Amino acid sequence: MPRYRDLTHTSRPSNAPRVVEPKNPLRTTDPGTIEMLKVAQENKLETVFDRFVAQQPQCGFGYKGICCRICLAGPCRVKAEDGPASRGICGATAYTIVSRNLVRMIAGGAASHSEHARHVLHTAHELVEGKTKDYEIKSPEKLHKLAEKLGIETLNRDNMEILGDVTELAYEDFGRYKDRPAAFLDSFLIEQRHNKFLNTNIMPRNIDGTVTELMAQTAQGVDADPVNIIFGGLKGSLADLVGEYIGTNLSDVLFGIPEPIVSEANLGVIEEKMVNIAVHGHNPVLSEMVVGAARELKAEAQKAGAEGVNIVGICCTGNELLMREGVYLATSSASQEMAILTGVLDAMVVDIQCIYPSLTQLCDCYHTKMITTEAIMKVPGAQHLAFNSETAMEDAKKLVRIAIEAYKRRDPKKIALSKTRNSLVAGFSIEALTDIFGKINPERPFSVLTDAILSGQIKGVVQMAGCNNLKRQQDESHVAILKALVKNDVFVVATGCSAGAFAKMGLMNSEAVEEYAGEGLKSFIRQLEEANPQLSTKLPLVFHLGSCVDNSRGMDLVQAMAKELGVDTPKVPFAASAPEAMHEKAVAIGSYCVSMGIPTHVGTMPYLEGSDLIYGIATQIAHDVFGGNFIFEVDEKVAAQKILNALEYRTWKLRIHKQTAEKFDTAIAQGW
Amino acid sequence: MPRYRDLTHTSRPSNAPRVVEPKNPLRTTDPGTIEMLKVAQENKLETVFDRFVAQQPQCGFGYKGICCRICLAGPCRVKAEDGPASRGICGATAYTIVSRNLVRMIAGGAASHSEHARHVLHTAHELVEGKTKDYEIKSPEKLHKLAEKLGIETLNRDNMEILGDVTELAYEDFGRYKDRPAAFLDSFLIEQRHNKFLNTNIMPRNIDGTVTELMAQTAQGVDADPVNIIFGGLKGSLADLVGEYIGTNLSDVLFGIPEPIVSEANLGVIEEKMVNIAVHGHNPVLSEMVVGAARELKAEAQKAGAEGVNIVGICCTGNELLMREGVYLATSSASQEMAILTGVLDAMVVDIQCIYPSLTQLCDCYHTKMITTEAIMKVPGAQHLAFNSETAMEDAKKLVRIAIEAYKRRDPKKIALSKTRNSLVAGFSIEALTDIFGKINPERPFSVLTDAILSGQIKGVVQMAGCNNLKRQQDESHVAILKALVKNDVFVVATGCSAGAFAKMGLMNSEAVEEYAGEGLKSFIRQLEEANPQLSTKLPLVFHLGSCVDNSRGMDLVQAMAKELGVDTPKVPFAASAPEAMHEKAVAIGSYCVSMGIPTHVGTMPYLEGSDLIYGIATQIAHDVFGGNFIFEVDEKVAAQKILNALEYRTWKLRIHKQTAEKFDTAIAQGW
Repeated sequence: MPRYRDLTHTSRPSNAPRVVEPKNPLRTTDPGTIEMLKVAQENKLETVFDRFVAQQPQCGFGYKGICCRICLAGPCRVKAEDGPASRGICGATAYTIVSRNLVRMIAGGAASHSEHARHVLHTAHELVEGKTKDYEIKSPEKLHKLAEKLGIETLNRDNMEILGDVTELAYEDFGRYKDRPAAFLDSFLIEQRHNKFLNTNIMPRNIDGTVTELMAQTAQGVDADPVNIIFGGLKGSLADLVGEYIGTNLSDVLFGIPEPIVSEANLGVIEEKMVNIAVHGHNPVLSEMVVGAARELKAEAQKAGAEGVNIVGICCTGNELLMREGVYLATSSASQEMAILTGVLDAMVVDIQCIYPSLTQLCDCYHTKMITTEAIMKVPGAQHLAFNSETAMEDAKKLVRIAIEAYKRRDPKKIALSKTRNSLVAGFSIEALTDIFGKINPERPFSVLTDAILSGQIKGVVQMAGCNNLKRQQDESHVAILKALVKNDVFVVATGCSAGAFAKMGLMNSEAVEEYAGEGLKSFIRQLEEANPQLSTKLPLVFHLGSCVDNSRGMDLVQAMAKELGVDTPKVPFAASAPEAMHEKAVAIGSYCVSMGIPTHVGTMPYLEGSDLIYGIATQIAHDVFGGNFIFEVDEKVAAQKILNALEYRTWKLRIHKQTAEKFDTAIAQGW
Repeated sequence: MPRYRDLTHTSRPSNAPRVVEPKNPLRTTDPGTIEMLKVAQENKLETVFDRFVAQQPQCGFGYKGICCRICLAGPCRVKAEDGPASRGICGATAYTIVSRNLVRMIAGGAASHSEHARHVLHTAHELVEGKTKDYEIKSPEKLHKLAEKLGIETLNRDNMEILGDVTELAYEDFGRYKDRPAAFLDSFLIEQRHNKFLNTNIMPRNIDGTVTELMAQTAQGVDADPVNIIFGGLKGSLADLVGEYIGTNLSDVLFGIPEPIVSEANLGVIEEKMVNIAVHGHNPVLSEMVVGAARELKAEAQKAGAEGVNIVGICCTGNELLMREGVYLATSSASQEMAILTGVLDAMVVDIQCIYPSLTQLCDCYHTKMITTEAIMKVPGAQHLAFNSETAMEDAKKLVRIAIEAYKRRDPKKIALSKTRNSLVAGFSIEALTDIFGKINPERPFSVLTDAILSGQIKGVVQMAGCNNLKRQQDESHVAILKALVKNDVFVVATGCSAGAFAKMGLMNSEAVEEYAGEGLKSFIRQLEEANPQLSTKLPLVFHLGSCVDNSRGMDLVQAMAKELGVDTPKVPFAASAPEAMHEKAVAIGSYCVSMGIPTHVGTMPYLEGSDLIYGIATQIAHDVFGGNFIFEVDEKVAAQKILNALEYRTWKLRIHKQTAEKFDTAIAQGW
């Protein structure tokens, strides 16, 4: 057996730096952001980069996860190795405190993704109830596929009736108290994972009850057993996945299944001659309407002197619109403020999650209108326009008109356009990938992928995901890891702000294949292109799966590969990487990836170094139980190597297995 | 207008000490605990009192609520008044960070109380389904009353069928997604509060969805508006109340409505000649069975050499059993470890919440067996015996037998009995109070209370609640505030560890009335006694409502008084006090008390002093919107005065109102 296993199970990088010192003083590698940061510096405007510096050094107790504020007797800190100061006032030790804090982050993540899903679900429900005329079942194909998966009858039934049953089941998944697994997980799992989750007692019955139970489990004086707490957390992470499955699938039904589409990314897409509206956050329910309203109100924008209305996306709302509408992606999370600094952004329309409260501070220095739209997301200083599905298009038009008005108040002295914009190809839903692979093997599309792995043409699949976190220089690790992977012939899919990084940097197009892909990957992508002459575009270096809820698409992918190979997911040469994990959602996603049997690299340390036991559970014991484990590694080169090793190890085992099977077959054929 | 209003709206005690220096070095005023702490010191055993000292000084950022660990870019701290260091990396300012942290505590509290309720509900459900034979509908009277309140038909129906409908509705209250208020709140509210909650948009539809939504609202990049966040928190606190109403009412149905009962409290109730089992935590579902099992297994205990099995309660499990079974209360939360130090505690059986993980550490030094029983509550080193409603009595017998075995292994050298035990009278459910008042006025029982207030015989009602928190000397503030209130003729009801403090200190009996009550209160209590010759006991100085979920009984009381007076709750001379608030549950309870229009004193600072705005919302703006407000006051004398002022102010207004009304009546009668 080769050396791989040791490296896959990473040893604890105890002396690893918490904060990686930037190679340029601007703490970003994104050229568009670098342009705008100069504007900020010239005009003495505070940005997230300044606040990051001002926060250094950060608290070591919090960083290690050994600060407890779960009751009012605190804050307590683990201050010593032994004796009374080694425990909180109640007696909670480091492993209890670390695990409680950690799984409460998972609870926050699961709550976030499910809140996103809940909103999409409400919209679908209002469509069914006839309360909104502004939405439609854009993909009856997806609806039928989904309904069949969920065991809902489709034959000779009206689509709206089918959607009614689907939404009913999705609602049940939020609040079910009867003892059956959540439908939007259960129906999406291969048998082996299904059994694994039942046997380890982490299969969630519902989302809301699971989050609530996790909060109760981690309250003062309740669970002190780190293993029990972590298992509770993994159940919570699967509740997160339920929310993602609801979010992704219902979004596809309402707004269409993403298909390959070309667009452009980075701040240069904010154009001087247009009324520019950034839609920022996560939820397509609002932003899809804004796109429609912008088309309808072109004349009004022209009357105001502009050439039209230019919707640009930021963060995952950007990814949602990019995937389905080809809307430009202006920027990703850490550089969201930069869009305002162009001086030509007329409105910043936000929904939920990853929205810096500082945006209003910058909008105050410009003509830009900041508008919040959701009941649970307001920012002092921003205008709030309550967005309702019932009046969706009307509300969206109001938003566009606010931007048109703001356009008239631009200050020409403050205009500082970015020159950076890169072409990209996005839109790779599982259905799109199935179509592409299916052109080579219509019966078994994913064998195209697994055969290429077994033959050594490509090394495996990596799903790159997650946020920006300024503990790393912005986007540097995303890019460095991607480049190392593709050079070594890894097929890379990406979501969220990882995909955003690649899009902004010009790595999500065909030119990048030529420049960065290893020979194996290059030939694999070219084969796919040759088999798919119907595509209007060449294929990119990295395949955009969508927003962060669309990490669920990756779970479909790894399971499709597992089915194809006839194995459980821990045997599939598939890994995940979140080089700049930041949000609680990332903690939840990482945790379900591990539960799904996937080696999961994280490049920014979660708050757990205060307990060797928890570190060991995350990196070692998780592997023993679920076949997946965390790989915490802040050095991008080492990280890439560890990911590659994990893939190689799995491929090596698959091949051994295959060779052995073939030998047996031969032996049997020869009568032993 | 008198001087009261200023004092009721407390000014911020910015220089108030965080930690009150103890007057005795043992940091407790409980004589039983003082006895045992000497044992701990002699034997060099670590207790919570040592860990409290070891934690000083505690982190000022966490204390003020301006430390943020909601995402992995942190921990961030508000380090400056202005500039980049005054905000987190994302731009969140102090008010955003403080309010997010605060309402996540409410989420934790609501989750905790509802988890307790969920367990009682599951048990009731299994009874309905015929899956358990060990429980029964002990109070059909309560079941019928509850069903009628909830709008469930009772006429000519089987009790089990009615209970089935009640449990169905309670389950819906956990997971309802349809747009109607939670039944276990809606049906319990007077019309004015009902409308207030609807109008301010804080009426919860369900428990689990509300907790989850609150987690999502407070995630990174979501709500930054402190007022919106706090309103979300108040909705969460009402979800807590839903859980409490389910918990209290179903417990009454299954285990009986508490009635006046005599018992004893403090560590002296742990008797050398008995097999002693402490039941600790919150949930009566397990402990009620243990009481039954103990009776059945008396012979086995005798065979082992003991006189019998002595169940003693700790914390709220203790309160539950005290209220319904008259079981001895050994001690309250901060002194839970002391029970082990007697050397004659044979088993510490715990369910959920407020259970120090340190208990196992002490059990390891004694023969005492520590046994956890719930799936979400394990402690490394403790034996886990999964308790199931289906096999409840069988499981309970196993627990008792473990204690009997342990009894045989006692080390005589380690025996250090406490001499402290005080008599008490408990069991004052609303039904019990209604009966007692009803002997004076059967038609309008609560007029007995309100008339006494209007006549000046008593000053009002105060509900004392909450935990121990060693930032105060244990129990000192509970006792000091109680004594000041009763001396000033306040009718005091108590729950949780506040009630525990009074019980332990001998303040919950008739002798205490003689010693501490003012003349008005004394005469009022004596009148009640005279009208109730059927009672087997005299009445106590302070009326025990039950465990911390039974704070819901207080909400029934204040509303009964409001109905009697024909006013909304903010006009009722009723206040609440949690002198040693510690748990997240206390934050949730305090917040719903404020929403219910009650001036609510808290004697240990929640983590909010980092934002003047949040402090102002809690103490002032809340009053403007809901008629209730927090009174943060760490000095017990000043606190008592502020509470008295709040009552006097309300009584003064009621009298003015009454006089004016009477004048009008006279004028009208005289033809103006």
